[in-house]
Amino acid sequence: MREVRVIGTGLIRFGKFPEQTLADLARPAILTALAEAGVERRRIEAAYCGTALGGMMAGQRILKPLGMTSIPIANIENACASSATAFREAWIAVGAGVYDVALVLGVEKLTKLGGGPLPVEQEDWEAAYGLMMPALYAMRARRYLHDHGVGPEVLAQVTVKAHRHGAKNADAQDRREITLEEALSSRPIAEPLRRADCCPTGDGASAIVIAGADVARRLGRDGVRVVSSTLTSGKYMTGFRDFTSPEITTRAAAQAYESAGVGPDDIDVAEVHDAFTIAELLYYEALGFCPRGDAPKLLADGATSVGGDIPVNPSGGLLSKGHPVGATGVAQIVEIVRQLEGRCDGRQVEGAKLGLAHVTGGGVSGLDHGACAIHIFSR
Amino acid sequence: MREVRVIGTGLIRFGKFPEQTLADLARPAILTALAEAGVERRRIEAAYCGTALGGMMAGQRILKPLGMTSIPIANIENACASSATAFREAWIAVGAGVYDVALVLGVEKLTKLGGGPLPVEQEDWEAAYGLMMPALYAMRARRYLHDHGVGPEVLAQVTVKAHRHGAKNADAQDRREITLEEALSSRPIAEPLRRADCCPTGDGASAIVIAGADVARRLGRDGVRVVSSTLTSGKYMTGFRDFTSPEITTRAAAQAYESAGVGPDDIDVAEVHDAFTIAELLYYEALGFCPRGDAPKLLADGATSVGGDIPVNPSGGLLSKGHPVGATGVAQIVEIVRQLEGRCDGRQVEGAKLGLAHVTGGGVSGLDHGACAIHIFSR
Repeated sequence: MREVRVIGTGLIRFGKFPEQTLADLARPAILTALAEAGVERRRIEAAYCGTALGGMMAGQRILKPLGMTSIPIANIENACASSATAFREAWIAVGAGVYDVALVLGVEKLTKLGGGPLPVEQEDWEAAYGLMMPALYAMRARRYLHDHGVGPEVLAQVTVKAHRHGAKNADAQDRREITLEEALSSRPIAEPLRRADCCPTGDGASAIVIAGADVARRLGRDGVRVVSSTLTSGKYMTGFRDFTSPEITTRAAAQAYESAGVGPDDIDVAEVHDAFTIAELLYYEALGFCPRGDAPKLLADGATSVGGDIPVNPSGGLLSKGHPVGATGVAQIVEIVRQLEGRCDGRQVEGAKLGLAHVTGGGVSGLDHGACAIHIFSR
Repeated sequence: MREVRVIGTGLIRFGKFPEQTLADLARPAILTALAEAGVERRRIEAAYCGTALGGMMAGQRILKPLGMTSIPIANIENACASSATAFREAWIAVGAGVYDVALVLGVEKLTKLGGGPLPVEQEDWEAAYGLMMPALYAMRARRYLHDHGVGPEVLAQVTVKAHRHGAKNADAQDRREITLEEALSSRPIAEPLRRADCCPTGDGASAIVIAGADVARRLGRDGVRVVSSTLTSGKYMTGFRDFTSPEITTRAAAQAYESAGVGPDDIDVAEVHDAFTIAELLYYEALGFCPRGDAPKLLADGATSVGGDIPVNPSGGLLSKGHPVGATGVAQIVEIVRQLEGRCDGRQVEGAKLGLAHVTGGGVSGLDHGACAIHIFSR
C-alpha cells in the first residue's frame, strides 16, 4: 500500500433544506474540494459516497448532474460512520493503486424524515419499544453521573464548549454561543439529557479528494497524510454491567494508535462523535485522553478547548456544527485536514501536527452492533 | 495487488419470506460459504455486505447473531449491482493485503415493500410519472422488435430458456418450465412485456468467502481465480436516438476484456442481468457474444443454452432464479464459481474454464445514472 494524501476538502454549512435534493446539497462541497485539490472533474477516477438514508444510487444521482459519470461509484452505508467508512474504502483502493485520484462524499437529508425519528428495522425491537438514540445515551449519562458523583452541569459544560468553538466556524449549523444556565434549563428530552445536550438534526454534505502521495506530488499538492485508518464493529457499550465504557471505541483506539505508531498524548487535535454531550466525555476516556472518571476534570481544566492540551471538536462538533448522519465522518476529516493545514482562523489549534477523527455508528437500537472508524492524519 | 481467489460460496433459494429478518435470510448462505471455504467464523477478517434496501447496518445486523463482530464491516449499495460492488471492494482490500480472508454478502428483502414498487426519490420525476423499470424495458423491447423486424416470440424464447435452465437448479425461485405459448399468453405488464418477461420479486441472500491466493494455498483451497473486476457508472442506454444499445454494459465489457486479456469468444459461461427478457438479448450484443441485431438468432440456434457455444444464465438467471436486488450480484458469482468447479449437476457447462458475471443497477428512473459491474473468473 502506498501513502495516500488528502489534497482537497469541501463542505456546506449544515442546516434544514427540505427543498434541496442530495445533488443540490453535495454540489458546492464537491466543487470546493476539487478546487482545493486543483484537479478537474475528469481527473477523478472513482467516487465513494457515504450516506445512511440517501436511498438508492446516491452517488450517481449526485455526480450525474456534474458530468462525473463513467467512473466506478460505490455507495457506502454504516449509519453515522457511513462517510468515514467510504473514506476508508477509498483509502484502500488508492493505496492499492487501483485509482490515483478519488473523491469521497458524505451526504444526508434528514428533513426528508419530516422531523420523525430514524426508521426502525423489523428486528430492532429495542428501538421499537422506545430505546432510540436519546434514550440510550440518557441511560449512559445517568449511570456516569451516578458513578462519578457529578451533576448534569458536567454535561452542560460540553455543549457550552461546543458552541464556543462553533461560534467561530462559519460552517456550523448552530453558531449561537450558549451559557451553562441556558443549557441546564433547556427543554428535557430524555433525562438527564436536555435539548442542549443533543446535536441538531439537519441536511448536509461534505467532500474530500485523495490521491496517492506520488500523484499528489506530481500535482504539486502537499496535502495531509493519512497515517492510519481503523474500522471495526461491535458493542456500543461493554454490557449492561458497564454502561459507560464504549467498548467499540476503546478497541478501535488501541488499533488506531498501534497502527499509527503513536499514543493519545501525541494527538494535537481531535474531532470526536459528540452526538450527545455524554458521548464526548465517554470518548475522552475511551480515546485515552484521560483516565476513566476524569473526563469532567479534563473538560473543566480547559484541556479540550482550543488553546488547551488536546482540543476536541474545534469545529463545534456534532452539537454545534450539526450531524446529518452520513455527512459527518467526512466533515470531521475536513476539519482535521484544515486544522493541520493551519486554515481554521478563530478556532485554529496552533502548531497542530497530528489529528484524529473518530465516529461511531449504531443502527437504531445500536446496543451491540455498532461501527467505529478512527482516522489519524499528519501534516 | 496480489491474486485473489473465491474459496467458498453459499446462497439460499430465493422466495418470499415476509416473516424473516435479513439475518434469518443470510445465515444459511453464510454458513454454507464458510463450510465450503473450510474456515471458521473467526478467520473472517472483514465483511462487505451488499444491499439496496436493507436499511442501516445490514451487515452488522446479520453478523452479530453469528458472533461475527469486532471486524470491519462495510455496507455497500449500488441498486441491483450492490453485492457485485461489495465483491469488488472486498477484492480490492484483499488484493491490497489489508485483509487475508473476507466475507462478501448479498441480501435483500423485497417483501417488506408489501408488493409495491421500489421507492422513488425526490428527484426521480421520470419514475414518479410512471417510468418504472418495466416501462423502461418495455420501451427498449418495442424499439428492438421494430428495428429488427421480429415479434414478441423472441422475447418469450428467452424466458423459456431461463426456465429450462432454472428447472435444473434447486436454488431457483421459480423452477417451473414454461412453454412459448404460456409465455406469450401471460398477463400483460408493460407491452410488449408480459409477466413471463419479468423476473419475480422476492427475498434472498448470497455469500462468498475470498482470500489472497497465497492464503488460499495455505488453507489447502484451490478455489477460483478472480481474473478481473470492472465497475463503472453511466447511461443505461446511449440516448433517446438509440434505445437498444446499453452503453454502460458495452463500455464495461470492453474494459473487462482488456483488463482480463481475453475476448468474448474466450468466455465459456456467463451470468447476465436478465431482469427482463429484452435485457438478455441486448446484453448478448453488448457483451460481444454476437453482432447487434443477431441476438434472436444466437438464442434460437441454442448457442446460449447449456450445451451451446456460450451458455448464458445456466442458473436460470433473474427470470427463474429470482432477483432480490442486493442479493443478485453475489448469487451470479456463486453460479459462475460452481460452474467453473464443475459442481452444477444437470445444468453443468462441460469443461468451463472462464466465466463472466454481469450485473447492472439503475436506481429507479435509471435512464442515465446506472452502475455496471463485470467480473471474470478462471478455474
